[in-house]
Amino acid sequence: MLKLPVIPDGGFIDINPSKIIALGLNYVEHARESISQKVSLRNDLPDEPVLFVKTPNVLVGPGEAIVLPVVDKKYVRDAGGPRTDYEAELALIIGRRAKNVPVSEAMDYVMGFTCFNDVSQRDIQTYDRSGWWRGKSLDTFGPIGPCVVPANKIGDVHNLRIRSILNGKVVQDASTSELIFKIPEIISFVSRFVTLEEGDIISTGTPAGVGPLSPGDVIEVDIENIGVLKNPVVSQ
Amino acid sequence: MLKLPVIPDGGFIDINPSKIIALGLNYVEHARESISQKVSLRNDLPDEPVLFVKTPNVLVGPGEAIVLPVVDKKYVRDAGGPRTDYEAELALIIGRRAKNVPVSEAMDYVMGFTCFNDVSQRDIQTYDRSGWWRGKSLDTFGPIGPCVVPANKIGDVHNLRIRSILNGKVVQDASTSELIFKIPEIISFVSRFVTLEEGDIISTGTPAGVGPLSPGDVIEVDIENIGVLKNPVVSQ
Repeated sequence: MLKLPVIPDGGFIDINPSKIIALGLNYVEHARESISQKVSLRNDLPDEPVLFVKTPNVLVGPGEAIVLPVVDKKYVRDAGGPRTDYEAELALIIGRRAKNVPVSEAMDYVMGFTCFNDVSQRDIQTYDRSGWWRGKSLDTFGPIGPCVVPANKIGDVHNLRIRSILNGKVVQDASTSELIFKIPEIISFVSRFVTLEEGDIISTGTPAGVGPLSPGDVIEVDIENIGVLKNPVVSQ
Repeated sequence: MLKLPVIPDGGFIDINPSKIIALGLNYVEHARESISQKVSLRNDLPDEPVLFVKTPNVLVGPGEAIVLPVVDKKYVRDAGGPRTDYEAELALIIGRRAKNVPVSEAMDYVMGFTCFNDVSQRDIQTYDRSGWWRGKSLDTFGPIGPCVVPANKIGDVHNLRIRSILNGKVVQDASTSELIFKIPEIISFVSRFVTLEEGDIISTGTPAGVGPLSPGDVIEVDIENIGVLKNPVVSQ
């Protein structure tokens, strides 16, 4: 099982969620780019958190390879070939069971924060009539780490620089201050529908600048006060 | 944790999947009714298994209540009010890790079979631009049981009568012979995209006749050679 160091407190935490809930379209500029690329199923900005899940088979640690799949021709949307994107995201780990949590108490349910790469196979994501799960959940499509920073050590979690760096070049560069739905609202909202368990992961969405991965790439997710999650990309 | 008896072998099995994968539109008559009710995002019959996931928070055992949620007005599609449906399904439990399994070997990865009720909140299911997960995954939306029958004791798994019975009246009545995608094809297909782990659940889709649940109802899923999964329905 994947374990990550808890920094600066010491020790390790098992990364073994019963569910990984992720947000779509939670930064305005990214929501607009998704709509323009026909990834979103609707054309308006969200009036509530847009939720989907990734299954735990996606999880890999720092340094582990993201494996680009062979994509059947029938799924491919673009003459340029199939497209699998990086998405830099701030993720949180739930510290204890949460159900119908009010916004004012939601932060008490967060154990800590980490970096997450919500890797997304766009052709399958948009092909599936049932939603985003499959295109978002191929094996290795959820790099996480390099560490977990406890909630009381992260500083102002809504004012952290978040970047992704592809082969040394910055390709996403934003601030968590730009989140449309803030972390307490997200936790409260999710907990109205599903019970969150200790160890569950919520990833808060990606800013603008998503783009495709190719074999041989190295992709980094760098979040202020957490660290750099770096993964190589290989083909299946 | 939920445990179910293994019949006729004896003992119990923990129901603790890392993922629950379900099929949409896997009986022709139900696919047509879903399309006519605008639940499906596309209007053609599927040319491959239509996959979605439910998260483990849905799981409840025989006799436990299905809790109908309060549904925000903005989601409600119909003047008649919100609609949460029963869906009788044959589910299988994976016996060992499976990745890229050929159709010819797929049945070797099945531990056993059980009844599953893929409870579905239609308004949220169709509202969500990201897909079916939320409407399919409210707490208690996955009754399972009453037992698990090992793969070598089930008989011809593609020739079992499957019914649902609402307050004593038969409302779904079909045969697993009508599955569009058969169990070995389903397992092989799923395992091309995600690694299946021991204990994972795959639910094979529901036949025609789905319909709404109301507080005070009792809903049964009855599958030949397995047994009857019976759950009361309450309001939140």
